[in-house]
Amino acid sequence: MSAITIMNTPLAVPGFLASAASAGLKKNGKKDVALIYAPQGAQISAVFTQSQVVAAPVIVSKEHASDQSASALIMNAGNANACTGEQGMQAALRSCEAAAEALGIATDEVLVASTGVIGVELAVSRIIDSIEPLVGSLSAQGEALEEVARAIMTTDLAVKIASATVEVGEKTYTMTGIAKGSGMMAPNMATVICCVLTDAPLTKEALKAIFGQAIDESLNCMTVDGDTSTNDTAILMSSGLGLYDTRIEDGDPGYSDIEMAITTICVELARAIARDGEGATKLVNVYVSGAATSADARTVALEIGNSPLVKTALFGNDANWGRVAMAAGKAGVAFDQSKMAITFGGIDVCKDGTAVGFDEDEALAALDREEVDVHVDLGAGECCAHIWTCDFSYDYVKINGEYRS
Amino acid sequence: MSAITIMNTPLAVPGFLASAASAGLKKNGKKDVALIYAPQGAQISAVFTQSQVVAAPVIVSKEHASDQSASALIMNAGNANACTGEQGMQAALRSCEAAAEALGIATDEVLVASTGVIGVELAVSRIIDSIEPLVGSLSAQGEALEEVARAIMTTDLAVKIASATVEVGEKTYTMTGIAKGSGMMAPNMATVICCVLTDAPLTKEALKAIFGQAIDESLNCMTVDGDTSTNDTAILMSSGLGLYDTRIEDGDPGYSDIEMAITTICVELARAIARDGEGATKLVNVYVSGAATSADARTVALEIGNSPLVKTALFGNDANWGRVAMAAGKAGVAFDQSKMAITFGGIDVCKDGTAVGFDEDEALAALDREEVDVHVDLGAGECCAHIWTCDFSYDYVKINGEYRS
Repeated sequence: MSAITIMNTPLAVPGFLASAASAGLKKNGKKDVALIYAPQGAQISAVFTQSQVVAAPVIVSKEHASDQSASALIMNAGNANACTGEQGMQAALRSCEAAAEALGIATDEVLVASTGVIGVELAVSRIIDSIEPLVGSLSAQGEALEEVARAIMTTDLAVKIASATVEVGEKTYTMTGIAKGSGMMAPNMATVICCVLTDAPLTKEALKAIFGQAIDESLNCMTVDGDTSTNDTAILMSSGLGLYDTRIEDGDPGYSDIEMAITTICVELARAIARDGEGATKLVNVYVSGAATSADARTVALEIGNSPLVKTALFGNDANWGRVAMAAGKAGVAFDQSKMAITFGGIDVCKDGTAVGFDEDEALAALDREEVDVHVDLGAGECCAHIWTCDFSYDYVKINGEYRS
Repeated sequence: MSAITIMNTPLAVPGFLASAASAGLKKNGKKDVALIYAPQGAQISAVFTQSQVVAAPVIVSKEHASDQSASALIMNAGNANACTGEQGMQAALRSCEAAAEALGIATDEVLVASTGVIGVELAVSRIIDSIEPLVGSLSAQGEALEEVARAIMTTDLAVKIASATVEVGEKTYTMTGIAKGSGMMAPNMATVICCVLTDAPLTKEALKAIFGQAIDESLNCMTVDGDTSTNDTAILMSSGLGLYDTRIEDGDPGYSDIEMAITTICVELARAIARDGEGATKLVNVYVSGAATSADARTVALEIGNSPLVKTALFGNDANWGRVAMAAGKAGVAFDQSKMAITFGGIDVCKDGTAVGFDEDEALAALDREEVDVHVDLGAGECCAHIWTCDFSYDYVKINGEYRS
């Protein structure tokens, strides 16, 4: 009997208000700015891109997040505010200042995250002008979080949101996560704007431990195109210490369930991002087993998940396992090719490193689905990994050959 | 005054005969097997794929090449003979045996190289049956080498061949290189079947040193899709010691010119492979300067050259330099983003890490060419690198979504 309930409907999280508005950054006039506000404050854990080229909002948020506390998060789509130099730094700071002033809190209590085109000056006045409507429409409803998730979409086709509840004794805690994709997606300790809210009264240490683990098992196991963004930002915010007279640390009742719920939400968001990868026609689960170490397994799985030849074959519903063998082989991980086994959609296609006779029509049917599994066993040990990716279609080229113009 | 002449017409190389034939491995009936034979023998240097998944012909050729001598090379397209287990090993060996018997030489004097689909049993009887016509049609003409280059093509659209002559005193030496592309192309110490023939009487030590250097500066600086083949094989063969009463070692007259000619041929082949990358509409030169080390420069250049987002932008003639900055940033190389500069086709688009105003029409015109340059200066040192790649088009997806079926 688990006390965890996972659901796709966006649940409101006690202690958090949210709103979205249009600042005119998206060309189509859709909502493109969003605000999350915790009136009683929040303890947080945040992770950011490991790139050497770091967007201004990442630099500002890193500093504001250093004390693991924040009361607000302002986000925008339509402009990444990356490679924008000193002007970009001022724009990110002024966004925080404007939100802080309107909310009556300190500037370093405001985090900022941006996504969109790189290298274009951010029209910060548009964001500042949108603060008033954002603050004026703050809502405690779950639907407001869905509006936030929709506002930060760029080339995403689907809203990415997941909720869970966890019963701990007589108390029920809630967690809701939102995220955006869907290109420049090979997170390295974070992805472009993922935010998980909860009222579970976790300590700062617990938040850090749980979120580190959750991100490692979810967004860091997902790739769309192997390209890591300049803006990757993932934040876990907890309002609980401001709401309740209790606190939860490692070892306390409910800690494990809360950890599992937050990890599950992050996995759901990672799967949603991969499924909605630019141009994707299917979600691909790559499982690697029989590796000497877990790191080896993940390295091989990501090589397979990032291989253009594997991804185009999956687009073509072609059980071209030789390409999977190629990708595994180039990962720089030691194994004996004569012990390698591969299945596509549960169908054995390679055993002992060589072909297994299989029915091509059956294989095509197994691959012509919205979600497909590729499993490689290296025969080199007991460790395994699971990563999420997508196929590589004409539309990826279309979307990215025409994106900026 | 250089004594080196580079040309695109295929020159015959004294001491080598060549032929091509159809063994029925290509579905369209085109020539698909080829033989190169040095009646007086040859000294060689060979490099092979670094993959853990290694094709049978690579395993066999590695062994036969271990004494740095060989008299013949038999090649086929249409089947890579990779992931084919013990049957594949027997097929590769029997191909060598059949050629050796027909030519009256030892089996370990024959090298073998295959390219094509992975994981399908090789119909070795077809190759054995083609030995007689191959041996019967051996020719000393340059045109025969062009036929060989054509026979090993798979998804290649263009024949890849380059020749050079080097004057050393009163003697003129010749070198002709052939290669094939054009997918699964991110060589790591070699590429799928590249063969350079010369009559320059180089010692084994000289051959190894020159070819190691030449490959490092050419095929190892080229990428089409970041996918490394199971079959990568590059061989330099010299007939000179069997033909002439002289030998050339490091420090001897002509050594440097010969080294430069062989390197130039390998660079020409690498450029030809990138230009003819699957679905490519343009050859892309990625230059990285201002790096702290040469290794850093190459790492950043390859990250840029392998980035799907950069490659699709180039296909769309979009000077989307933010993606170049992103790719540089994720390379794991330290630099200060505020010192980064980027040009597209000679047009400044980013300085001091931020946008430079440029004319979009001018940039589009600079990118809408058969060969374009992307230059990144990291501002972190004095080292640089140059790699060759191509753009990423609808046709890459078409070719690879439909390849095996």
